Amino acid sequence: MTYDHYFSAALARLHAEQRYRMFADLERIAGRFPHAIWHSPSGPRPVVIWCSNDYLGMGQHPKVIGAMVETATRMGAGAGGTRNISGTNHPLVELERELADLHGKEAALVFTSGYVSNDAGIATIANLLPNCVIFSDAWNHNSMISGVRRAGVEKKIWHHNDVGHLEELLAAEAPERPKLIVFEALYSMDGDVAPVNRICDLAERYGAMTYIDEVHSAGMYGRRGAGIAAREGALHRIDVVEGTLAKAFGCLGGYIAANADIIDAVRSYAPGFIFTTALPPAVCAAATAAIRHLKSSQWERDRHQERAARVKSVLNAAGLPVMSSETHIVPLMVGNPETCKQASDLLLAKHGIYVQPINYPTVPRGTERLRITPTPYHDDELIDGLAEALVNVWGRVKLPLQHHAVAAE
Amino acid sequence: MTYDHYFSAALARLHAEQRYRMFADLERIAGRFPHAIWHSPSGPRPVVIWCSNDYLGMGQHPKVIGAMVETATRMGAGAGGTRNISGTNHPLVELERELADLHGKEAALVFTSGYVSNDAGIATIANLLPNCVIFSDAWNHNSMISGVRRAGVEKKIWHHNDVGHLEELLAAEAPERPKLIVFEALYSMDGDVAPVNRICDLAERYGAMTYIDEVHSAGMYGRRGAGIAAREGALHRIDVVEGTLAKAFGCLGGYIAANADIIDAVRSYAPGFIFTTALPPAVCAAATAAIRHLKSSQWERDRHQERAARVKSVLNAAGLPVMSSETHIVPLMVGNPETCKQASDLLLAKHGIYVQPINYPTVPRGTERLRITPTPYHDDELIDGLAEALVNVWGRVKLPLQHHAVAAE
Ligand SMILES: Cc1ncc(COP(=O)(O)O)c(C=O)c1O
Ligand SMILES: Cc1ncc(COP(=O)(O)O)c(C=O)c1O
Repeated sequence: MTYDHYFSAALARLHAEQRYRMFADLERIAGRFPHAIWHSPSGPRPVVIWCSNDYLGMGQHPKVIGAMVETATRMGAGAGGTRNISGTNHPLVELERELADLHGKEAALVFTSGYVSNDAGIATIANLLPNCVIFSDAWNHNSMISGVRRAGVEKKIWHHNDVGHLEELLAAEAPERPKLIVFEALYSMDGDVAPVNRICDLAERYGAMTYIDEVHSAGMYGRRGAGIAAREGALHRIDVVEGTLAKAFGCLGGYIAANADIIDAVRSYAPGFIFTTALPPAVCAAATAAIRHLKSSQWERDRHQERAARVKSVLNAAGLPVMSSETHIVPLMVGNPETCKQASDLLLAKHGIYVQPINYPTVPRGTERLRITPTPYHDDELIDGLAEALVNVWGRVKLPLQHHAVAAE
Repeated sequence: MTYDHYFSAALARLHAEQRYRMFADLERIAGRFPHAIWHSPSGPRPVVIWCSNDYLGMGQHPKVIGAMVETATRMGAGAGGTRNISGTNHPLVELERELADLHGKEAALVFTSGYVSNDAGIATIANLLPNCVIFSDAWNHNSMISGVRRAGVEKKIWHHNDVGHLEELLAAEAPERPKLIVFEALYSMDGDVAPVNRICDLAERYGAMTYIDEVHSAGMYGRRGAGIAAREGALHRIDVVEGTLAKAFGCLGGYIAANADIIDAVRSYAPGFIFTTALPPAVCAAATAAIRHLKSSQWERDRHQERAARVKSVLNAAGLPVMSSETHIVPLMVGNPETCKQASDLLLAKHGIYVQPINYPTVPRGTERLRITPTPYHDDELIDGLAEALVNVWGRVKLPLQHHAVAAE
């Protein structure tokens, strides 16, 4: 008996749907971001990265690299064990303190990734609440959906960002039944933001716990980079903040921050936290350096917003289909996987511009897009070059350009 | 409505069962492993680590640290994206090639951890096989159990390492039904080894796929460190090899190695692989350095086995209850959580020896133990010191010493 045909058939389905993914083999150059080397099939070539989630370029910040290098040199590479069995390293303990402080909570807990923090965090919290029902935004990230499924409790999906619908669902439950509302602060494929305070109003009215994912906002919003809930003055109304160390903080890992008992309970009960090796000390020290820097430095946040606004206005002026977004995410609608991949391939091959096509399952079918993420290090010349290349590619793949007035940003 | 009492009650249950866990805050010293600093509640103190899963001390190997430092300096800290969206970095591509070569497979796929590789790998493979039934060893690690559950397919648990029982279960299924056998090469809490070739015999007879977890054996067994299946000459009979970069290779991350289509299908379908940031280039480069070193250097493996044998014989001679183990794991049975924690606390506080107590859910209740992991860097003096300290502690906590003849190793 051979199983090969099952796997080849699964791959054939992806090719048929034009959504077989090719990964670009990239080599970043510290100090020159967003410039990088693309290891193309025909050899290395210089490219400009326009789709990184190292949103603030902290992955190349001298303080961050310095902390990583110094800590690796002093303490070695890996943690050497699970958190319980010799893996709790001093830089990790310091990182958890830093994160608790960032989000104004009593404690924080670090996981190997943001994915695992949602997967394990949501499931464990829900399972510690007898007969819990979870209210989950329809657009929640796969890691949150995974956490909800893992919990195995009843769930209600509310229409994306629709507090009216959320209230309907909350009101339909018995008042004494434990309730957990899980949502994202900032939805990364569209760039829209949750109505955090209105969700908290409902949570208070109906006695629900709140769990917010600040993966695409921590570091980038709020006075000290604590995220959207902080910017909205709602941090104290949120029970659990979840985030990543791998995007604005430029490293790797995920976390939750909450009151001490919640954190201690998740620490004690979550298999995805317990049964895995702890993050390396050097990664933790690097993340701490990034968080500390962004707590006091406003430059990256201001420049990031200014760059995103400029990209939107330049691309809009060029007639490109910029989807409306209130944040630093600049999605360009294409609408089918084949053209989207063609456009991306042309940008890379002809213009040395790397913007990965975004297709199903990351976004719904029929909404395939190019998702552009400006950083503080994308200068005017790079922005103009991007617009020119896009207009050229739009012509080649026969996508329409809109000749409308420039939308004010 | 407040939820606080649910979390405090959950914590109270752990305290009542004597299995509330305290993590030791450790600071490793590169070049001096297993010596480390313990950040105790009353300040920093020197300790010797005797329970690390950095089994070969590769976390402090100059080549490994060198690769980490050099790569971080050149390429920065984080990968900056998911694998699909700008996160595939050149050192990661090289690491995957190195792993495929190590296990003699066409391809390999790296995950953020060994936990995630099992969780996502098993689930995705099982879900690509229509009507698949999984045969899972009763002692399989939590991450494998999680993968089996996530698959949501029928499962049969076979008694630990019992090929007779496995055959019974296999024979009971329709011959044409897809079957997946998942098991560990080396069970880390007891140190026993799976009958790999006999399992492969059954897999061939009954037309099943085989999936082996080499997390506690890769790097340490086999001529080039490919693990137990390699040592047994069974590597070509195994469909999927899973492993970690965080134990013998001293870093962080997990992987599977298999034929190209299996790897490509998991790459394309596994949410836990798709929706998370890729490993940092510096971590990948460090892991590659460790793997390459251990492919050609036999010194670490030989010394590791010799040290483990010595620890077993010295502790046995001292009358300590060394559980029989054919490998590098040296478990000492205690049998209840309270005494186990007391013994561990005394070792740390009075002797500067750190051996974490192992309790439920990591091992079954009533089999709480101290699990000792000698490395090539534990010298005779440290071993003698360990034995002395253990005998002293055994007396204090009133555990019996056995006065039997020394078992030959
Ligand atoms: C909303 C959201 N949550 C969580 C994650 C996972 O974070 P990480 O990359 O740290 O696993 C992502 C993306 O990666 C995300 O978009
Ligand atoms: C058998 C087994 N598989 C997988 C894992 C997970 O590996 P990692 O620590 O890389 O997540 C562990 C322990 O950590 C394990 O003991």
